[in-house]
Amino acid sequence: MRELEEARSRIAAIDDAVAAEAQRLLDAKTKPRRSLGRLEEIACRFAAARGAPCPPLPDKAIVVMGADHGVAARGVSAYPQEVTRQMLLNFARGGAAISVLARHVGARVVVVDMGIVEPLPEAREIVSRRIGPGTRDLSAGPAMSREQAVAALEAGIAIAGGLVAEGVTLLGVGEMGIGNTTSASALLAALTGAAPAEVTGRGTGVDDEALARKVEAVARGLEVNRPGASNPLDCLAKLGGFEIAGIAGAVLGAAAARVPVVIDGFIASTAALVAVRLEPRVAGYLIASHRSIEVGHALVLRELAVEPLLDLRMRLGEGTGAALAMGLVDASLRILHEMATFASAGVSDSGA
Amino acid sequence: MRELEEARSRIAAIDDAVAAEAQRLLDAKTKPRRSLGRLEEIACRFAAARGAPCPPLPDKAIVVMGADHGVAARGVSAYPQEVTRQMLLNFARGGAAISVLARHVGARVVVVDMGIVEPLPEAREIVSRRIGPGTRDLSAGPAMSREQAVAALEAGIAIAGGLVAEGVTLLGVGEMGIGNTTSASALLAALTGAAPAEVTGRGTGVDDEALARKVEAVARGLEVNRPGASNPLDCLAKLGGFEIAGIAGAVLGAAAARVPVVIDGFIASTAALVAVRLEPRVAGYLIASHRSIEVGHALVLRELAVEPLLDLRMRLGEGTGAALAMGLVDASLRILHEMATFASAGVSDSGA
Repeated sequence: MRELEEARSRIAAIDDAVAAEAQRLLDAKTKPRRSLGRLEEIACRFAAARGAPCPPLPDKAIVVMGADHGVAARGVSAYPQEVTRQMLLNFARGGAAISVLARHVGARVVVVDMGIVEPLPEAREIVSRRIGPGTRDLSAGPAMSREQAVAALEAGIAIAGGLVAEGVTLLGVGEMGIGNTTSASALLAALTGAAPAEVTGRGTGVDDEALARKVEAVARGLEVNRPGASNPLDCLAKLGGFEIAGIAGAVLGAAAARVPVVIDGFIASTAALVAVRLEPRVAGYLIASHRSIEVGHALVLRELAVEPLLDLRMRLGEGTGAALAMGLVDASLRILHEMATFASAGVSDSGA
Repeated sequence: MRELEEARSRIAAIDDAVAAEAQRLLDAKTKPRRSLGRLEEIACRFAAARGAPCPPLPDKAIVVMGADHGVAARGVSAYPQEVTRQMLLNFARGGAAISVLARHVGARVVVVDMGIVEPLPEAREIVSRRIGPGTRDLSAGPAMSREQAVAALEAGIAIAGGLVAEGVTLLGVGEMGIGNTTSASALLAALTGAAPAEVTGRGTGVDDEALARKVEAVARGLEVNRPGASNPLDCLAKLGGFEIAGIAGAVLGAAAARVPVVIDGFIASTAALVAVRLEPRVAGYLIASHRSIEVGHALVLRELAVEPLLDLRMRLGEGTGAALAMGLVDASLRILHEMATFASAGVSDSGA
């Protein structure tokens, strides 16, 4: 609990005065004021988080956390549980969508085993931070103990801290875990009071029967666990997953080091919401990458009060939306660094 | 007229069977089917245009065409007319937003003087295809003659053809021209029958008075010129600009070589609409980059039946939206090339 409290205490509000100074720099560039729209907002947000009006281009890493979920036994996914492990290996070998998109934007991928059923062989491409061999079935009782939730949060904090120490200044977060949309839906319902059917979607693409089983599992999870909505740690432990807790921790750890976090789809965004509920000042460090078609994602984004950069009807997770959005963050900072000013280019400025 | 007719006759419909084959390749990749949403659609569209299910990553160029507009004398812009020339020099020196964003995505920028008032000094960074020293005032009579419009279209066709000969396989189009939102608004009203106030916006950021002058100029342009809605060449000549005609030609020239075109904001998209009206098979080659906040852009996108990839509240032009979208097109093709399949990665496929 000490590392968690320490990280929370280090999180400072982002600096609005720095954002205003970054906007002044942008307003001197050869373009009508604010005509690059959200690209300018993102540059200012990044500057405010970093505490510098013209910060260097980011050194980017995407943490992809994987874990298994006891609730998968309820038939809530279109894929068998072994796919979690198979996909972590696919990430490590560079063949998954996140591998490709991270290469495309020049981001490192850090794959973390937070607790899949069968451990992976030792491989330097996969960081082992196993809390256990998957969570217990959230629809029958708590998915994890309070101690496990704290351990997973602190593992995430430590991973973010390690990356920051290596120079990372922009963190993306993604996940892999068969059954984890069910866990995120239950967690979101607990945190917001939303009804299970409102926040439970088709995940990897389940049919109507499996969707009904998911809604039922979420409802049962709320019923048997009675999580306290005002106690995010209680909600996380009872309904979350090891990777969800790990991502929440990574978000806290990044914010504690003034490193902005590009969130991904429904599950990673729900993890970020846990981090914000644990420490509201985290919110300023979040950059929403995309709006997934997973039904609960719009609600999470509203709760976080963030507007996504992309809306490409994606629903893959892994950090794929975060990777694409990192390309836009880079673009926004290159505008700040590389564009000529009205004065330097000899262009008449009307002030418009 | 011969080059124009020749280009039109060479434009073939994109190949839906090739798009289906590209989708089959994507469906074998380690992800739930279609879970990359519009990224998959774009890869299939590019494949269908190129006529190959797994085409090489594109060699990218953005053509930025500049010209002056007689209607600028009516006080329709927030900037003085000399800014067109100043900005072409800024493009050539690499200091403009399009310069930065094109570098970011690895696209060449080709700057073309289609007819600004005062010619630029000879510079190898700027291609001179001057039709004249700016168009005439469209609110007082035809902006150009039919011969000038054809010459500008054919200049665009030639420029696209030259780039294709150098290996370009993805073309972006952008523009610069003080007064050109007024021209594009008038052209769009003529082509669609929309009322001037519906398609006339604030451009670079004019105030209410200047906006009223723009609407008035558009209305006068329609009244004095009486363009034939079913005759796109007539509309283009009477209400367009040299750069708008040049872009329409570049779109035709690219489509004739099966090269997809990433369109930009309001003005470039209106130019693309002229190309589609001249030859409807062009439509399959268009990739809509973004939705600008310029009021008429949504109508143009509806007329083209395309859905933009980005909605970032941008309103700059120059091809800046096209550049950002090119990064997404590249990403979509890297997915097609680089992702592992269920079989190659040993991942269980449920068929979802």
